[in-house]
Amino acid sequence: MEYFLAAATGDHTGVLLTLFVMLVSAKLMAELFERLRQPAVAGEILAGVIIGPGLLGWAAPSEITGLLAEIGVIFLLFTVGLETKPSAIFKVGKRAAFVALLGVIAPFAGGYLVMQAWGSNTVESLFVGTALVATSVGITARVLSGMGLLDAPTARIILGAAVIDDILGLLVLAVVSSMAAGSINYLEILSTAALAIGFTAFVALVGAPVVTRVAPRVERLRSGQGLFIFGLVLCLGLSVVATYIGVAAIIGAFLAGMALAEASEDSPKMHSQISGVTEFLVPFFLVNIGMQLRLDVFRSSSVVALCIVVTFVAVVTKLLGCGLAAGSLGLKRAAQVGMGMVPRGEVGIIVAQIGLSLAVIGAELYGVVLFMAVATTVVAPPFLKLLYASEVAARAKIGPDDAGGIVTSEDLCKIG
Amino acid sequence: MEYFLAAATGDHTGVLLTLFVMLVSAKLMAELFERLRQPAVAGEILAGVIIGPGLLGWAAPSEITGLLAEIGVIFLLFTVGLETKPSAIFKVGKRAAFVALLGVIAPFAGGYLVMQAWGSNTVESLFVGTALVATSVGITARVLSGMGLLDAPTARIILGAAVIDDILGLLVLAVVSSMAAGSINYLEILSTAALAIGFTAFVALVGAPVVTRVAPRVERLRSGQGLFIFGLVLCLGLSVVATYIGVAAIIGAFLAGMALAEASEDSPKMHSQISGVTEFLVPFFLVNIGMQLRLDVFRSSSVVALCIVVTFVAVVTKLLGCGLAAGSLGLKRAAQVGMGMVPRGEVGIIVAQIGLSLAVIGAELYGVVLFMAVATTVVAPPFLKLLYASEVAARAKIGPDDAGGIVTSEDLCKIG
Repeated sequence: MEYFLAAATGDHTGVLLTLFVMLVSAKLMAELFERLRQPAVAGEILAGVIIGPGLLGWAAPSEITGLLAEIGVIFLLFTVGLETKPSAIFKVGKRAAFVALLGVIAPFAGGYLVMQAWGSNTVESLFVGTALVATSVGITARVLSGMGLLDAPTARIILGAAVIDDILGLLVLAVVSSMAAGSINYLEILSTAALAIGFTAFVALVGAPVVTRVAPRVERLRSGQGLFIFGLVLCLGLSVVATYIGVAAIIGAFLAGMALAEASEDSPKMHSQISGVTEFLVPFFLVNIGMQLRLDVFRSSSVVALCIVVTFVAVVTKLLGCGLAAGSLGLKRAAQVGMGMVPRGEVGIIVAQIGLSLAVIGAELYGVVLFMAVATTVVAPPFLKLLYASEVAARAKIGPDDAGGIVTSEDLCKIG
Repeated sequence: MEYFLAAATGDHTGVLLTLFVMLVSAKLMAELFERLRQPAVAGEILAGVIIGPGLLGWAAPSEITGLLAEIGVIFLLFTVGLETKPSAIFKVGKRAAFVALLGVIAPFAGGYLVMQAWGSNTVESLFVGTALVATSVGITARVLSGMGLLDAPTARIILGAAVIDDILGLLVLAVVSSMAAGSINYLEILSTAALAIGFTAFVALVGAPVVTRVAPRVERLRSGQGLFIFGLVLCLGLSVVATYIGVAAIIGAFLAGMALAEASEDSPKMHSQISGVTEFLVPFFLVNIGMQLRLDVFRSSSVVALCIVVTFVAVVTKLLGCGLAAGSLGLKRAAQVGMGMVPRGEVGIIVAQIGLSLAVIGAELYGVVLFMAVATTVVAPPFLKLLYASEVAARAKIGPDDAGGIVTSEDLCKIG
C-alpha cells in the first residue's frame, strides 16, 4: 500500500515533511529567542543546526532546500530594495565604496596571514582569505528590517557597501580561483568586472526611472494584480541576469526592488503580498544555513582551535576594516557599520564549496570555513540589536512597529 | 570562468531561469486570454504546453517544478478553504456526497467500457476508468475565485464533492492497483478508507472550533505575524498528514483553510500575505500541468482518435453523472456542478504515472491519459465562465471585483 501512496503523492510527502519541520522549528526558535530578547534570526539559524545532520538529523540540506533558501533570500533582498530609494544609496555612495574596499582588504589579508601562521600552503591561505571577504547582507537586512531601521543612515551604508563588496568579492574569487588552476586570465577577469559594474550602474541609474514610468501602465492590465506580478517578474528576471553576469542573485533582486521603490510606494496591496512570499520563504534560507554546519570537525582539538581563531579573525577584520572606513561617523555608527558587515552566511558557504570542488581546500578546512560562516552569522545579530537599541528606543516614542518590521497591510491601511 | 560562476551560484542559475520563463509565459498568456475574454487558467496551462518539451522545449517538468507546483496548489486550496466556513459545506453535505458518488461511478464505468470496446485488456480498461474518476478541484476553484463566486451555492457543492471524490478515488485506485498486482488486501483498503474519512471528519468537525479558540492567542506571540505563521504551519502540517493517510495534500490544505476561516475573518493582513504566496506559486502549478503534455503520441492517427474519444467520455460522464446528482437544482446549476467536476488536471496525471510505474499501461496509453488530463483542464474553464456569466453580472450590480478574485488588501481596507 505504501508504494501506491508514495506514488500517488508524487513522492513529495517526504519533501513536504522536511519543509514542515524546517518551518516549525524555525518559528519555535524565533519565538524562544524573541522572549529571551535575542534576535529571531539567530534562533532560526540555530534551529537549522539543531534539526540538521550535525545533531538530530531530522532534515538535511538538499537541492530543494537550497533552492527554496535561494528564492527566500532573493525575496528578502527584493523586499529590502523596495524600501530603499536609489537616491538614498547614491548619497552614501562614496562612503559605502570605502567601507566595501577596506571590508575586502582587511579580512583577506587577515585570513591569509593567520593561515600562513598556522602553516597552510599559499593557495589554501588565499582561499580562506577569499572566504573571509564574503558578506551576507541578507542577515543584517533581516535584523534591521525586524527593528524597522532599514532607513537609518548606517543601514544605507551597509546596503550600498554590501552590493560593492559582492562585486569586489567576485573579482577576488575569480583571481584566486584562476591562480589555483595555474594561470590568470586577466582579460576575462577584467570583462567580468566591467559587466558586473555596468549591470549594477545601469539598473540603479536607468532602471528606476524607466520602471517608475512603466509601472502605472502595468497596473491597468486586465489580469489584475499587475504591479505585484510585474514585481515578481522583475525580481526573478534581474536575479537571473545577475547570476549570468557572475554577481549574486540577491544583488539583482535588491536592484529590482530599488528600481520599483518609487513606483510601488502607493501600493500597500503589492507590499503586503510580497511580504507574504518573503515571510514564507525566509525561514528556509535561515534554517538551511544552520543545517550546513558540520559538527564532525570538532573531533580534532586543533581543528576546534582553528575554527575559533578563523572566526575571531573574520569578526575582527570586518569590524575594524569597515569600522575604520566609517570612522568619521563616530564610534557607535562605525561599530554599527562594521558589525553589519560581519555575517558571512550563505556567501561564505558558497566560497567554501568552490574551494572544495577545486580541491584547493580539504574536508577539514572546508569544515572550518563552514563553521566561520555560520558562527559569524549567529554572533552578529545580538550585537547589532545592542548597537541599534537607542535608535529603536528613539523611534518607539514616535510609533512602535511590532509586526516584525515587514510592512503589514494593517499598517498600510492606517497610512493609505 | 563559467565554471566558477556556475559553482558560485550553487548551480541555481538554470533553475532560476526556468522559473522565470514559466512565470513570464504564464502571465503573458493569462493577459492574452483575459483580453480574448477567456479564462486566464486555460491560458496559463497552454503556456506550459507551448514552452514545454512538446513544443519549444524552453522548460521541462522536473522534481523542482513539480514541488513548486505542489506547494502552489496546496496554497490555492488553502486560500479557497479560508473563504469557506465548515457550516456552508455541511449544509450541502448530502447533495455533495451524491454528486461525488455519481461523479465516480459514471466516469469509471464510461472509461472501462470505452476501453473494452477499443479492444484493451481488463486491467488497462480498469486503469483508464480510474484515471477518469479523478477531479482536480484546483482548476475550478481558481476559475470561481477569479470570478469572485466561491460562495455561490453550486461552488460549495463542487468543493464538498471534490473532497469526497478524492477519498472515493483513492479507494478505487487502491482496489484497481492491488488487482493489477494480483491480489486485493481488503483489510488494508478498509483501514485506508477509515483513516481518510476519519481525518476529514475530525478536522472539519473538531479542528475548526479548536482553531477558532487557539488563534487569538497565536496572534499575541512575540515574533509577530502570528496568525500568518500559524496558517502556514497548519496548512503545511495538515497537507503532510493528508499525504501520509493517502489522500491528496490539497485536501489537507483545504481543511486547514476551512478550520481557519472563522478565526482569520478579521485579519486582512493575513489574507493578503497568503494571497501573495498563492499568486506567486499558482502559475507554476498551471504551467507544470501543461508541460506534461506529450505531443509525440499524435504520430499515430489511431492514438489521436483514442485521445479524442477518451477526452469526450471524460467530459460527458462527469457532466452527466454529477449533473444528474445535482439535477433537482435545475438544469443550469446542474450543468455548473457537472462542468466544475470535469478538469482532471494533476490528479489524472498522477494516476497515469502510477499506471506507468506498475507497468499496467504502456507509453501510448500513458500519453492518452495525459492528453485527457490536460484537455479536460483546458476545456472546462471557458464553459464554466459561460455557465456562471449571469451570476457575475448580477453581482457586478452590487460591486465589481476586478482583482482576480483573490481578496486584496485594498479591498480589505475598504471592508476593515
